Amino acid sequence: MDEIKDLACAMVIFGGTGDLTHRKLIPALYNLNHDNKLSDDFAIVSVGRRDKTDEEYRNELLESVRKYSRFKPDNEKWKEFRQKIYYRKLDFSQDSGYTALKAFLSSIDEKHMTKGNRIFYMAVAPEYFEGIVTSIKKYGMATNIGSWQRLVIEKPFGRDLDTARYLNKTITDVFDEKDTYRIDHYLGKEMIQNIMVIRFANSMFENIWNSKYIDNIQISSSETVGVENRGGYYEKSGALRDMMQNHMLQLLSLIAMEPPVNLDTEAIRDEKVKVLRTLEIMSPEIVEQNIVRGQYGPGTVNGKALPGYRQEEKVAGNSVTETFIALKLHVKNFRWGNMPFYLRTGKRMPEKTTEIVIQFNSLPDILYFKNNGGLEPNLLVIRIQPKEGVYFQFNGKKPGTGTEVESVKMDFCQNCETISNSPEAYERLLYDVLRGDSTLFTRWDEIETSWRFIDNIAKAWESKVLDLHEYGPATWGPEEADMLLKRDNRKWWNL
Amino acid sequence: MDEIKDLACAMVIFGGTGDLTHRKLIPALYNLNHDNKLSDDFAIVSVGRRDKTDEEYRNELLESVRKYSRFKPDNEKWKEFRQKIYYRKLDFSQDSGYTALKAFLSSIDEKHMTKGNRIFYMAVAPEYFEGIVTSIKKYGMATNIGSWQRLVIEKPFGRDLDTARYLNKTITDVFDEKDTYRIDHYLGKEMIQNIMVIRFANSMFENIWNSKYIDNIQISSSETVGVENRGGYYEKSGALRDMMQNHMLQLLSLIAMEPPVNLDTEAIRDEKVKVLRTLEIMSPEIVEQNIVRGQYGPGTVNGKALPGYRQEEKVAGNSVTETFIALKLHVKNFRWGNMPFYLRTGKRMPEKTTEIVIQFNSLPDILYFKNNGGLEPNLLVIRIQPKEGVYFQFNGKKPGTGTEVESVKMDFCQNCETISNSPEAYERLLYDVLRGDSTLFTRWDEIETSWRFIDNIAKAWESKVLDLHEYGPATWGPEEADMLLKRDNRKWWNL
Repeated sequence: MDEIKDLACAMVIFGGTGDLTHRKLIPALYNLNHDNKLSDDFAIVSVGRRDKTDEEYRNELLESVRKYSRFKPDNEKWKEFRQKIYYRKLDFSQDSGYTALKAFLSSIDEKHMTKGNRIFYMAVAPEYFEGIVTSIKKYGMATNIGSWQRLVIEKPFGRDLDTARYLNKTITDVFDEKDTYRIDHYLGKEMIQNIMVIRFANSMFENIWNSKYIDNIQISSSETVGVENRGGYYEKSGALRDMMQNHMLQLLSLIAMEPPVNLDTEAIRDEKVKVLRTLEIMSPEIVEQNIVRGQYGPGTVNGKALPGYRQEEKVAGNSVTETFIALKLHVKNFRWGNMPFYLRTGKRMPEKTTEIVIQFNSLPDILYFKNNGGLEPNLLVIRIQPKEGVYFQFNGKKPGTGTEVESVKMDFCQNCETISNSPEAYERLLYDVLRGDSTLFTRWDEIETSWRFIDNIAKAWESKVLDLHEYGPATWGPEEADMLLKRDNRKWWNL
Repeated sequence: MDEIKDLACAMVIFGGTGDLTHRKLIPALYNLNHDNKLSDDFAIVSVGRRDKTDEEYRNELLESVRKYSRFKPDNEKWKEFRQKIYYRKLDFSQDSGYTALKAFLSSIDEKHMTKGNRIFYMAVAPEYFEGIVTSIKKYGMATNIGSWQRLVIEKPFGRDLDTARYLNKTITDVFDEKDTYRIDHYLGKEMIQNIMVIRFANSMFENIWNSKYIDNIQISSSETVGVENRGGYYEKSGALRDMMQNHMLQLLSLIAMEPPVNLDTEAIRDEKVKVLRTLEIMSPEIVEQNIVRGQYGPGTVNGKALPGYRQEEKVAGNSVTETFIALKLHVKNFRWGNMPFYLRTGKRMPEKTTEIVIQFNSLPDILYFKNNGGLEPNLLVIRIQPKEGVYFQFNGKKPGTGTEVESVKMDFCQNCETISNSPEAYERLLYDVLRGDSTLFTRWDEIETSWRFIDNIAKAWESKVLDLHEYGPATWGPEEADMLLKRDNRKWWNL
């Protein structure tokens, strides 16, 4: 297999001095280098608006590698790696610099044998996406003749269906769909990649993965922090656009999809998008019934006073942006029928955790379910982060001479023993971009279909100004979120 | 609930100086006493052939409690307990002593308020069963008028169907079926009691507990030791009668039974015996095909020379008694159809372990089963002893940037953390006799049906002198046992 040969390329990072580059991209590339997963013919050209020499930039990166890499930078490896890193000043909004950048990249091709292959990584604010992509075309940096060029683009991919379409049109004017890598870093997480394996490499799960055996599925992603210094961005986004449109619906796709024809990229993405297509476009009445919006208020946690969302920096004092959303939806196909999926995500929750809970049907009220009132149902819990693993909650006899039944767990914790060696999401994803494998990236029709679903909710909100419920810090959102399940005689599993 | 009131009784142990009494019965009773599970109105009258004062006997028992109890004898508790223990000399084969025993028990009734309630425990060699039971009747010690009397009888319950029937007739002449407790101490083990809970209190398991989802079920019970000093008994028994007729078929019943109507004793036993009734009486040809007999030969393990079975004490130099048996059988009902059960048990194996492996169907040769040749099937493993627990072996993604799939485990180990507190099998079983709960004891029709199945195998052996295969120490039996599964494209899971 000539994978290594194909990896020869220059990676151009727009936003080279930003947080993402320092905390995620460079540490991930360093890890790949450490694991000998980069071609010898590889270079990084970081582009930013500040003035900086290569030496200064490399020294700054060394600090970031120290802080954020899985591997501490050893002298030998770092020395080798730093020589592949360059910094170029460029004002993204001005055309003038692109000619110089093009010429510089050609010189890099000579020096590092990168053959004209390019990864353009958009690590900048979304308002620059269009200008940069257009300039890449204008200055002939993505001809795809005798070499390849790929675009990696971070979320948000638009802020609604229209803006996403516009952005996509701009991109497809320059890059083929197959060369466009819409990154959703959640998809790089170990346990998310594991969902398909768990489902399709285990007959026990495969056989019961449908509404005949499953009572409901809950997908939760919570953060303990508030909006922090991202108030400006978040005001325009909210939990619906920031989390639900991308991460949460991606998790839903993976958990609910039909088995693909094979494990090829397009076969998998075909099935994922089919899930999104089954989602019913909710009427305003259904939106009101099945969706709960929340915003965190001020409060005190562990003796520390925390501001409410409206008191955060760059947030309007009367903001109606939601920091929490819980919703009930249906995947309308034969596999899932009327079985509800409950999704929720929020900031300022009691725990930082992302997990999927598959709650199996309860048994009828006979035998142990009769003799031991209120037995818990079986749960299969897939932990995405920070703990990675799977566990199964089931009922067993309580040890002793009695006949009591208790709820116990079979546990498989993936990162309990190997926490330091598990590759970061970005590591996996960058490696895939280098190899040209876009399985873990979002295809345009997935984006399009998810925006259609999300837009409809946003519009219903706008027209009806759906109640926004305040919730206290370190709680699981407003009471109304609990009611959403209570109405169905169910409850959230806060495990 | 007036359970405690009902526990008032005198327990008469025939064989009071024997191994079973010292190692199991008295320590178990001491544990029950420690947990306040004995009535205040309780006494033990041990009967043996040797001369011994109460004091001497109690002191001997103190040593046994020290060695074998879960709780170290503390002064207070032991002092209380020892005063309930008496020793009476009696030659079981002579009638003369029974009158005296009867009178003594009456005096105990006065002293300990035991109300004429009796548990007669047969902890003697089987040749004495008949004589003792007959004498109990003859001397009016089991009238069941205004008080209750129960018989507890250890295996072997006969050595074939005819002798078992004869023994049972002797017993039913004295004790009602409901007062007869045929003990199989395996049934007192925590995880065996847990089998029904696992099956019938968990929808995930309940739904897939049949041949549509399960490929085969393996029940294994192995010992590392040889026949030790039990050669005399074992020569007449062999693995077929010693293990298969009772423990192994009991495990089979529990794992294969239909859900009972309720959790009452007779409802459960009705379902267990139904499993035994479905077993096909094998023709000599089927016996030859589906059963493997083995006998351990001499060999060296860890530098230590070990005798073969034929070199053991009280064993004939040309003995054809099997110390290992493996068999394939079918439970002929709609749930299990043609799905094979594989049972094996033997001495001088690499490990002492009893476990049940439920092997689920493999998935078709697509997706991960195509891309990662030779994936393991899903296994649910119920560990009976010495480890107690359940684990589930499934396939997961190997952490890292690759797409390899590996076999991993979800584990629930019941006794890993609470090993010292888990009650002993005998503790549970004696408590049940005291309470009059015979759920965990074998009903006559279970014995009868299992002997019918076993007898037929024994007869086929006798008439055809089935090959007896020698196997080395610390191996999993003769190669032919592996072939038994290999022929079906399966293998034993030596986990």
